[in-house]
Amino acid sequence: MKICVLPGDGIGPEIMAEAVRVLRALDLKFEMEEALLGGCAVDATGNPYPEATSKLARAADAVLLGAVGGPKWDALPREQRPERGLLGIRKELGLFANLRPAILYPELANASSLKPEIVAGLDILIVRELTGDIYFGQPRGIEVRDGERYGFNTMHYTESEIRRIGRVAFEAARKRDRRLCSVDKMNVLETTQLWRDVMSELAAEYPDVELSHMLVDNAAMQLVRAPKQFDVMVTGNMFGDILSDEASMLTGSIGMLPSASLDENNKGLYEPSHGSAPDIAGKGVANPLATILSAAMMLRYTFAQEEAAQRVEGAVKKVLAQGFRTGDIFEPGTQKVGTREMGDAVLAAL
Amino acid sequence: MKICVLPGDGIGPEIMAEAVRVLRALDLKFEMEEALLGGCAVDATGNPYPEATSKLARAADAVLLGAVGGPKWDALPREQRPERGLLGIRKELGLFANLRPAILYPELANASSLKPEIVAGLDILIVRELTGDIYFGQPRGIEVRDGERYGFNTMHYTESEIRRIGRVAFEAARKRDRRLCSVDKMNVLETTQLWRDVMSELAAEYPDVELSHMLVDNAAMQLVRAPKQFDVMVTGNMFGDILSDEASMLTGSIGMLPSASLDENNKGLYEPSHGSAPDIAGKGVANPLATILSAAMMLRYTFAQEEAAQRVEGAVKKVLAQGFRTGDIFEPGTQKVGTREMGDAVLAAL
Ligand SMILES: CC(C)[C@H](C(=O)O)[C@@H](O)C(=O)O
Ligand SMILES: CC(C)[C@H](C(=O)O)[C@@H](O)C(=O)O
Repeated sequence: MKICVLPGDGIGPEIMAEAVRVLRALDLKFEMEEALLGGCAVDATGNPYPEATSKLARAADAVLLGAVGGPKWDALPREQRPERGLLGIRKELGLFANLRPAILYPELANASSLKPEIVAGLDILIVRELTGDIYFGQPRGIEVRDGERYGFNTMHYTESEIRRIGRVAFEAARKRDRRLCSVDKMNVLETTQLWRDVMSELAAEYPDVELSHMLVDNAAMQLVRAPKQFDVMVTGNMFGDILSDEASMLTGSIGMLPSASLDENNKGLYEPSHGSAPDIAGKGVANPLATILSAAMMLRYTFAQEEAAQRVEGAVKKVLAQGFRTGDIFEPGTQKVGTREMGDAVLAAL
Repeated sequence: MKICVLPGDGIGPEIMAEAVRVLRALDLKFEMEEALLGGCAVDATGNPYPEATSKLARAADAVLLGAVGGPKWDALPREQRPERGLLGIRKELGLFANLRPAILYPELANASSLKPEIVAGLDILIVRELTGDIYFGQPRGIEVRDGERYGFNTMHYTESEIRRIGRVAFEAARKRDRRLCSVDKMNVLETTQLWRDVMSELAAEYPDVELSHMLVDNAAMQLVRAPKQFDVMVTGNMFGDILSDEASMLTGSIGMLPSASLDENNKGLYEPSHGSAPDIAGKGVANPLATILSAAMMLRYTFAQEEAAQRVEGAVKKVLAQGFRTGDIFEPGTQKVGTREMGDAVLAAL
């Protein structure tokens, strides 16, 4: 069980340290090796996804990532920006299936900006295609045409790309409430008309799952209006970026939300849904739970260690019930702890 | 003052009738002529934007639209679907600037799915570019390539398109709280890198307006987390479609929100932000206020009749204060009325 550990930038190293401690505390034999991705990699090598990292990641069974990016690297040319590292590793490893749960923990119900009755019990899984769409489409660029600058990008999907992510979503729905909502903009974009067509064709193979379709603008509204109507949502890379962030924010505690990005053989990259939070980096106050829960997803999806995954998830639930809170989820009446103490609490709960 | 009136589909004719009554009650001389757009136009002529409508719309100073679309026309080929009519008229009339206010009326604060303290006093203006971006980009289509279906679309903007909508947004911010947030995805899309560059250049001409930039995924989150941080937002056609619908839903009363789509000479198309609501069409229960408020925007932007605009807006506020509510905004303790009675109440308040 080889894990490539990429702490990354900002709070990445701090939160990763706790996730690694949790993994080490399980009775499982992991080989873990660290490498550089993102801004720290640019600083060290000039490349946000250096060859040494690529080699390690390719050889590993799973990649555990902290977070990348920060204002320090914003002014660099495009190829050297930290997020290029993230896009590079996703593409190179073929991590086409991004699973992003948006779960509201009962203890944290107050953190949401939505009314309690609207979000209580929220449990959505967003399945986002991650290696296609306008993210990677060619041609693209900024050129001068007719004497002025002109920017262009290409959105595209093939039916096999759509079918592949569709299957992941239907399978996921099967293990949950058997309802899948596919999101597109078929009334304007041909690419997503094809998306809708292929999803509808696929539905014939999953008669036990109820498939519905929704336009992306309506989905953005429905997530605000009545998010509990959704079980699993599946959409393309661009819409998935927007909707999965919107959905995570419904919980008010993005510091709690893990994510998985899988290839066709359950190799995966696991990372918290939140960013690198440069403003609080190095202060020991960041919430490590999303990273710890990402490690649990890794145990489940890549290593098929369902029991260990549930042990970790159970420990996280326990520390919440015990009242431990990092600053991002703190409220009066609970006990504020730092990153390390939160890690300690999870270890104790294990 | 020539107005082309397009009642459209679903509840369109009912809500339009009330807006027309309100306009007639003002001491202004309008020439109003009706035409077909959307599904009703397809039924009558096979074309969602018939030549007769185009002719009338081009000759008019302003277009007032109800709503288009409905399941009845969903199975038609792309070129005949009602939304083609909408895209067609926007493009033909060069209506590049879509202004969508998201305002929470104090009387309707409960309707929001967000906590009152998060949305009380909400007043955002979203400025969406409406005739460019991936909506109209070529090449586009669905083809068979390498033996499988392949869907593709093109996102693009020229610097003059960006500058044009940027000016509208900066000018709008000037008349409000002087804060403009430009939304893009510059870390992935070159088109929107150009968007950010041009907006930044433009800022030099508006030193009195504070410009900020935000990535679209973050904007989708921030609208949920703390929407009152925004004054004016400006973004492209695709992101604007998603974010403006998300923002309207924050108010919980999309039946109250008007919109304007303007060309370079303040000719405009005015329509409610909500859809054609086929489920309640013909029942006389739809909320006509968004259409009436769209007529008020028309008075302001196209006809420079600020006083009349304020009179209409004042009348709408008064009927809310009086407790009149259509079903979509009804709550116990208020008086439920139908479309026509709501129109009567506005006329009385005028
Ligand atoms: C950093 C950025 C390139 C990335 C994306 O847009 O995919 C991020 O927003 C995410 O969702 O993981
Ligand atoms: C009907 C559709 C083509 C349209 C759009 O996407 O622009 C609508 O959603 C809107 O926002 O006016």
